[in-house]
Amino acid sequence: MTQHSTLGVAVVGTGRMGADHVRRLDEVVSGARVTAVVDIDGDRAKGAARGIAGCTAYTDAAAAMAAPDVDAVLIASPGPAHEEALLAALAHDLPVLCEKPLTPDAAAALRVMEAEARLGHRRVQVGFMRRYDAEYLRLKALLDGGGLGRPLMLHCRHRNVATPPGFTEQMMINDSVVHEIDAARWLLGEEITAVTVLRPRPSGGAPEGLGDPQLVLLETAGGAVVDVEIFVNCGFGYQVSCEAVGERGAARLGDAHGLYVTAAGRWGGEIAQDYVVRFEDAYDRQVRRWVDAARRGETEGPGVWDGYAAAAVCEAGVRAQATGARVAVELAARPALYGG
Amino acid sequence: MTQHSTLGVAVVGTGRMGADHVRRLDEVVSGARVTAVVDIDGDRAKGAARGIAGCTAYTDAAAAMAAPDVDAVLIASPGPAHEEALLAALAHDLPVLCEKPLTPDAAAALRVMEAEARLGHRRVQVGFMRRYDAEYLRLKALLDGGGLGRPLMLHCRHRNVATPPGFTEQMMINDSVVHEIDAARWLLGEEITAVTVLRPRPSGGAPEGLGDPQLVLLETAGGAVVDVEIFVNCGFGYQVSCEAVGERGAARLGDAHGLYVTAAGRWGGEIAQDYVVRFEDAYDRQVRRWVDAARRGETEGPGVWDGYAAAAVCEAGVRAQATGARVAVELAARPALYGG
Amino acid sequence: MTQHSTLGVAVVGTGRMGADHVRRLDEVVSGARVTAVVDIDGDRAKGAARGIAGCTAYTDAAAAMAAPDVDAVLIASPGPAHEEALLAALAHDLPVLCEKPLTPDAAAALRVMEAEARLGHRRVQVGFMRRYDAEYLRLKALLDGGGLGRPLMLHCRHRNVATPPGFTEQMMINDSVVHEIDAARWLLGEEITAVTVLRPRPSGGAPEGLGDPQLVLLETAGGAVVDVEIFVNCGFGYQVSCEAVGERGAARLGDAHGLYVTAAGRWGGEIAQDYVVRFEDAYDRQVRRWVDAARRGETEGPGVWDGYAAAAVCEAGVRAQATGARVAVELAARPALYGG
Amino acid sequence: MTQHSTLGVAVVGTGRMGADHVRRLDEVVSGARVTAVVDIDGDRAKGAARGIAGCTAYTDAAAAMAAPDVDAVLIASPGPAHEEALLAALAHDLPVLCEKPLTPDAAAALRVMEAEARLGHRRVQVGFMRRYDAEYLRLKALLDGGGLGRPLMLHCRHRNVATPPGFTEQMMINDSVVHEIDAARWLLGEEITAVTVLRPRPSGGAPEGLGDPQLVLLETAGGAVVDVEIFVNCGFGYQVSCEAVGERGAARLGDAHGLYVTAAGRWGGEIAQDYVVRFEDAYDRQVRRWVDAARRGETEGPGVWDGYAAAAVCEAGVRAQATGARVAVELAARPALYGG
Repeated sequence: MTQHSTLGVAVVGTGRMGADHVRRLDEVVSGARVTAVVDIDGDRAKGAARGIAGCTAYTDAAAAMAAPDVDAVLIASPGPAHEEALLAALAHDLPVLCEKPLTPDAAAALRVMEAEARLGHRRVQVGFMRRYDAEYLRLKALLDGGGLGRPLMLHCRHRNVATPPGFTEQMMINDSVVHEIDAARWLLGEEITAVTVLRPRPSGGAPEGLGDPQLVLLETAGGAVVDVEIFVNCGFGYQVSCEAVGERGAARLGDAHGLYVTAAGRWGGEIAQDYVVRFEDAYDRQVRRWVDAARRGETEGPGVWDGYAAAAVCEAGVRAQATGARVAVELAARPALYGG
Repeated sequence: MTQHSTLGVAVVGTGRMGADHVRRLDEVVSGARVTAVVDIDGDRAKGAARGIAGCTAYTDAAAAMAAPDVDAVLIASPGPAHEEALLAALAHDLPVLCEKPLTPDAAAALRVMEAEARLGHRRVQVGFMRRYDAEYLRLKALLDGGGLGRPLMLHCRHRNVATPPGFTEQMMINDSVVHEIDAARWLLGEEITAVTVLRPRPSGGAPEGLGDPQLVLLETAGGAVVDVEIFVNCGFGYQVSCEAVGERGAARLGDAHGLYVTAAGRWGGEIAQDYVVRFEDAYDRQVRRWVDAARRGETEGPGVWDGYAAAAVCEAGVRAQATGARVAVELAARPALYGG
Repeated sequence: MTQHSTLGVAVVGTGRMGADHVRRLDEVVSGARVTAVVDIDGDRAKGAARGIAGCTAYTDAAAAMAAPDVDAVLIASPGPAHEEALLAALAHDLPVLCEKPLTPDAAAALRVMEAEARLGHRRVQVGFMRRYDAEYLRLKALLDGGGLGRPLMLHCRHRNVATPPGFTEQMMINDSVVHEIDAARWLLGEEITAVTVLRPRPSGGAPEGLGDPQLVLLETAGGAVVDVEIFVNCGFGYQVSCEAVGERGAARLGDAHGLYVTAAGRWGGEIAQDYVVRFEDAYDRQVRRWVDAARRGETEGPGVWDGYAAAAVCEAGVRAQATGARVAVELAARPALYGG
Repeated sequence: MTQHSTLGVAVVGTGRMGADHVRRLDEVVSGARVTAVVDIDGDRAKGAARGIAGCTAYTDAAAAMAAPDVDAVLIASPGPAHEEALLAALAHDLPVLCEKPLTPDAAAALRVMEAEARLGHRRVQVGFMRRYDAEYLRLKALLDGGGLGRPLMLHCRHRNVATPPGFTEQMMINDSVVHEIDAARWLLGEEITAVTVLRPRPSGGAPEGLGDPQLVLLETAGGAVVDVEIFVNCGFGYQVSCEAVGERGAARLGDAHGLYVTAAGRWGGEIAQDYVVRFEDAYDRQVRRWVDAARRGETEGPGVWDGYAAAAVCEAGVRAQATGARVAVELAARPALYGG
C-alpha cells in the first residue's frame, strides 16, 4: 500500500452509528472507500452496501476480513459483539477503529489486549472521538503547554435531551460518563483510582425508576479530582462542557455559541440537540486521522489500554452508583506495548 | 455649607423624569434632600411634594430658587422651559443639574453660556448620564490610557422597543442620537465637524411616516469617524452598544449579559426593555457625583459647552437628515471658562 | 422615628470591613448617619470618627448602644466578639446588621437565638450580602418562578487571588464556603443535611500546608446536591459563579463580562481582583435595605436562624474536611419566630 | 461519469492559494483527485505535482484542459490570468471553480458571461467561500426564514493583522471588501446600487500612504444600507463579523469564541490570526460542494453573474474611495441564464 492508494474498509455493524460511518467514508473522508459491510441481518447489510460501487455485503465479520479488498476494519456493532470482531481483525493484522466501548467489561478488554500484545504492535484505535474535537484539542494543548500550571480539577457537564426506552442507570456510566472518563484520563495524563456517585433527587422529567441526574466523582493517581454531572433527560438540548482548573488559571470548553441573536426580549442562540451535530467535526476528524495513519501502516490515538482502563473505571462506577460508596479502581499492570 | 451638611434641592419639572429624580434624591442619594418641587401644574407639584418631609410645592421656578432651603437645582422640565430655569438658577449662583437637552437649540445654549461666563465659574452640569455608566467609564479609561492606541472609529447602536405617539424624525436626532453625539465627543476628546444621515428602507414596525432606522455618520476635528445606528422601533428591547476601534485594538460595550440560561433549546438571557433599567446605575451615580460636588461648592461633569456643542451637532444632524447631504457643524469660539 | 427621620447607626469594629461600612453609611446610603463608632482600640475608634459630624468614638459597645443618638447597630468586629455585641443590642431592642459569621460556632448562635426569641420579634440581620447581588436575585427569582423546574443541583466556584498570612483550612470553610452554604440554603429553600470534602492535590501556588483547592459537597433535606470548588490561591482573580440545574434548564451567574476587548491576539476582558469590586453593589444594597427596614421599625433578610444554620453546616464541614468522611448536619428545632 | 467515479481536477496556479487547494483535493475532499497542475513557472508546477500519483505538470492551462483525465478546473492563478483560463475551460465545457475575483474588471466579466451564455448552461462557480461558512449559512437561513423580519441593515467588520508589501488602497476594495460585497448581495438577495467611502485618519500602524482603516457604505436596490469597516493593519488578529438588523431582531456572526480561559487577571481567548484558520471549514465545504455538484454534472453556488456584479461594485467603490463622493453602480441587464 503506497501513500496514495485507497484504503478498503470493512464496516462491521450497520445500525445508526455504522450507517453514519459508511456515509462518512463514502462521502467525507478522502483516501478510503467502503469495500465491505457486515451485519448479522443480511438484508440490512445489503441495504447498506447498495449504491456504493464495489462494496460487498457480509453477515460474517471474519469472512469480510479475509477478503482481498479489505485493508482495515471499522467496528460499529453492539458492544457485546466487539471482542469477537476485534480478535478476528487482529488475527488478520488489520488496522481497526472500534467504536466505544472497546468491550462491555474489563475482562474482555484484557483478552483483546493480550491478543494485540502477541502481535507485538498496536492495531486498534478506540472511538473516543472527543479527543478529536477542536475545543478538546485546544484544551489538551493548553494543559500540556503548561498554560494553566498543573491541572488540579475538572468540572464536567454531560447533558442529553432525553433517553430512549430501555435506558438504564448503568448505561449512564457505561455509555455516557465513559466519555468523560476517557477525556479525564487523556487531559490529565493520569489513571483514575476511585469513583464515587452522588444521587440528587431524580428529575420529574426522567423516566420512572431512572435516578437522573447524578454527580460522578473521579480521583486520579496524581491526586486530581473530577466531578461529572450526568443528566440524560435535561430536556433542553445536548450540552457537553469541561472546565479544567490549574494552578494558575482555568479554561472551559463547550459554551454554546454561534450566531448571537437579539430578538423578542432575549439575547442568545440555539443549542445543539444532538451529539451528531455537536461532535460532527470530531467524528470526521477521528476517521480521517485513522485512515491517514492506516494508509501509512500506523496506529495512533486511544488504544486498547485506554479501552481497558475506561471499562475498569466504568465497572467501579456502576458499583459506586449502586452502593453509594467510594469504590477503588483496580487496574492490571500496564504492558510495555502501551508505555507501561 | 460644610462637608456634611445636607444639600437642599429644588426639582423643576415633575413628569416621569422629574418624579424619578425626586425619588432618587429622597431614597437613594445620601447628602441631599428635596426641599422644593416646581411644576406649572400646581396639583402635580403638590402630589410630588406629598410625603416628603420639609418639601414645598411651587409653580414658579424662580420663587423656589429664592427659598432659603434651596441650595441647588435639578431641572427636569421639558426642553423649551430649560433656558428660563437655567438663567434663574445662574442668577442665584446655584449649582444646577440640567437634564439633556441643555436647550432645544444652539442659540439658546449660547445665551446660557454667556450668563455662566459672566458668573465667571461653572455652575451647570448637563445630564449626559452615559458618562457615569460603569462600562462607558471603563471604555473612557481604556482609551485615555492608550490601551487601544489612538481611536479611529466608533460603531454605535441605539435601539428602543418602540416610540410613543407623536415621536418625530427630528426627535431621533435630538432625543436619541444626542447621547451618542455627547459620548463620541467625550470618548474621543474631539469636536464633531460634519454629519451625514443615510436612510435605509423604513421598518414595517415603525409608525407610518417615520423613517426608522437610520444610519448617522459623524466626523470629528481629528479625523475620526463615528457611525450610529438609530432604531427606535426595533421591537425587541433596549440596546445601546459602542465599539471603539483604535490603532491597536477594539473594545465594545453594551453586550447583554447577566444570568446565562440554557433552556428550551436556547442559550442566552433577557434584554433590558427600558433605559431606566439599563442606565439605572448611571443615573444614580450621576446625581450622587453632582450632589457630592455641589456640597463641596464645585461643578464637574459635562457642562454648558457640551450642551451647546451637542445642540449644534443636532441642528446639523436634523438638516443632514432632511437633505441627504453632508452638513458641516459650525461652532462658536470656545470660551476660556470651558478650556477654550 | 418617622419615615423620614435619619437613622443613627453605631458601627462596632473599625477594621477594613467596619471602615468600609462607615464610609458607606456616610457617603452612599441615604437615610442614615454614623453617630457612633466602637473599637477596643480607642485611637482607631477616634480615627474612624474623625471628619464625621456628630459621630462619637467609643471603646465599649454597650456604652454606644445606650447613647440617645444610636438607633441601630452594625457589627463588623471580629467573629468572637459578635455574641457579646449582639446580646447587648438585643438588650436595647436595637435593629442590628451583623457581618457574617453571626457567631464562630453554632452553640453561641443558639444563645443569640434564645435572646431574640425572648424579645419576641426579629431584630438581627446577618451580613450574607450575596442575597443582595443583582445576579443572585435574578437567579432566585428564576428558581422561585419555576422557570427551570425544580432545582436539583448547584455547581459553585469560589476563587480568590491569594490568602493573607495565617489563613487556615478551617477558614476556607468558615470564611469562604460559608457564603455558598447560605446561598445554597436560600436559593433552594432547604436545609443542608450532610457535608463531604474532597481534597485534590494542593496547588503549588498555595502556602505550605494549606490544602487548596478543595471540593465541598453539600446535600439538602429535599435531596439536592451542591458542589463547591473553593480555591483561595488561584492567582488570577476573584471569581464567584453558581450554576443552578433544574428539571427543565440551567442558569449560571458570575461569568465575567463588561468591556469586550480584542487586542494583541486575544478577545475578552478583565477579571475583578477583589470581592469589594465584585460585590460592591450587593454591599450597598444590603445596607440600604437594612436602613430602610430599620426606619420602618422592621427587620428583614437573613436572620439569626440563617446564621445558626450556617454555623452548624460549617462545623460539619470542618469535621468533614479533617476526616474525609461524609458528616451529617444536626440542627436544633426551628423556633416559631423563624418559621419553624 | 457515474455517481462514484473520481473527479480529475486541473488546478491552475500553484501559489499559496493554489497549493492549498491541491492539498485540499488530495487529502481532505473525497471523490476528486488532482490530475493536473498548471503554472507558467514550470518548476513550480513540477514541485506541486510531485508526490501526487497520476498528476501531470503543465505550463499551459489550455493543454491541461484538453487532457483526457481532466474533468474539472480549479482556477487559483492571479486575477489578470482568469479570463483566459475561464474561456478555455468553457470552450471544453468543463466545470470550473474560480477563485475570486472572477476577473479584475467588470468588462472582462461580461465577456466571460457571454461565453457561458453561449454554452447555454452554468459551468462556473466563483470562490466566494463565505457562502459556505457555517455561521454565514445560519444567518442566511435565519434571514430567509423571516426570523428577523425584513433585513434593513448590515454592520460588517473586516480586519486583518497586517498587509504585505505593495498592498494598495484599491486592493482594500478589490481583495478585501469584495467579500462583504458578495456576502451583502447574497444575504439580502438584492443588488448594490451605490457606494460611498469615508476615510478616517489613518492608523499609525498602517504603511505610509495607505488610508487604513476606511468605512465603506453600500446601498441596495431595495433600500437596505450596509456599512463595512475595512481595517487591514489592525495588528491584533483576523476578525470578520457581520450583524444583520431586521424589522424584528438582529443577529451577529463572527464573535470570537472557543476555549474560555480565565488566567492572569483576564477572561477570554485567542483570536485567529489568519483567514486560513478562520475560514478553513468554509474552504473545505466550498470545494466539497463543488466536487459533489460536478460529479453530478451540475453547477451551483455563486456564479458568473455574481462575479460580474461584485466587479462592478468594486469599480464603483474604488471610484468612491478616490473621490469621496457617492458613486452609483451601473449593472448590465441580467441574462435569463442567471435568473434575469
